[in-house]
Amino acid sequence: MKRSSSHPPIPKKTVYRLSIYLRCLHRLRENGIRTVSSEALAKVAGVKSTQLRKDLTYFGQFGTRGLGYDVQQLCDKITASLGTNRLQPVVLVGVGNLGAALLTYKGFEQEGFEIVGAFDIDPQRRRAKDLAKPVLAMSALGEMVQQHHVRMAILAVPASAAQEAANELIEAGITAILNFAPTILHVPEDVMVNNVNLASELENLSYFVQTEH
Amino acid sequence: MKRSSSHPPIPKKTVYRLSIYLRCLHRLRENGIRTVSSEALAKVAGVKSTQLRKDLTYFGQFGTRGLGYDVQQLCDKITASLGTNRLQPVVLVGVGNLGAALLTYKGFEQEGFEIVGAFDIDPQRRRAKDLAKPVLAMSALGEMVQQHHVRMAILAVPASAAQEAANELIEAGITAILNFAPTILHVPEDVMVNNVNLASELENLSYFVQTEH
Repeated sequence: MKRSSSHPPIPKKTVYRLSIYLRCLHRLRENGIRTVSSEALAKVAGVKSTQLRKDLTYFGQFGTRGLGYDVQQLCDKITASLGTNRLQPVVLVGVGNLGAALLTYKGFEQEGFEIVGAFDIDPQRRRAKDLAKPVLAMSALGEMVQQHHVRMAILAVPASAAQEAANELIEAGITAILNFAPTILHVPEDVMVNNVNLASELENLSYFVQTEH
Repeated sequence: MKRSSSHPPIPKKTVYRLSIYLRCLHRLRENGIRTVSSEALAKVAGVKSTQLRKDLTYFGQFGTRGLGYDVQQLCDKITASLGTNRLQPVVLVGVGNLGAALLTYKGFEQEGFEIVGAFDIDPQRRRAKDLAKPVLAMSALGEMVQQHHVRMAILAVPASAAQEAANELIEAGITAILNFAPTILHVPEDVMVNNVNLASELENLSYFVQTEH
């Protein structure tokens, strides 16, 4: 699983853009397009072509001048780089409204992630009956993480419960958390947290809607 | 609704941090805490205290040296600035798995947003029966937006349908879109888009889980 030391780590913002390029390439491929110029790919991805070319230099030189990039080849390279060339196991903690939705959200599996287990402090709570997975007690977390070699977790608990749940995830061996709880998690240095704060996104828009003229 | 020109616009990243401070202040208030030092607030918000003090200078000077900030007063100032001192109307377009979840997600209303209407290209599709709102046809969008003076929309349609739905939103008068579709929207300059790409967030973590040692 370790990346060879000859590859420098790609900056976080570049990794985000690679995800976007990948999705654009998937759509091109679905439409039967086999090669794409950096200008055309940059345009559909909403970035400058100089930015795109710079981002793709992390994979070495492989665009053909005048012909552009081979769509399939570029898909493969980005997919391998993101580690999604096989289904990656993920656990979900917190099966309330948002957690239940994430559990049935097909977008994760389409992009190479499989939620192998869903956990809640109250597994017996009444929920929609069509959940894709049974909801397990937190006490079953450690075994699931070990058994499936899980490194990534989605955290969708209320803010007041988030730090304790994060501690349990880290204790179980999780090293990367996608945090939907509207709170800052305090984690060891070797644990990575990406925060998605839905209310903050709306508040941000709200501010700029007010200030527009 | 227009901001007076004597207030300079606050940078986007600062507005995000204000959302975080506000949530921290709410929790302090719930715990009966009336004043807070910049150091203590910065710590719970996960930022440096120099950053926090700089962010709060947008509201003028009002912390008391040695006493810190009045929790309620700071809540009020940030809330007013974000425009969430009254419920802000929002429309949701796309009631699939994710859209249905967002419709029942209580976090929006807690932070001052009310989803006044939910719209889908197929309003009759089978869905969970406990949705908070009826699902309306897209043809009803314009009237709802006008009637409730809606400026903000949540877009939760598949990537392939996103641009067309965005066009309809803008046509109806929407000027700010929280976009969950994994695609780049092309919009006029006076329309603001914030993108939330759940799969990209996981892919980003995935990359860094691989590279850790």
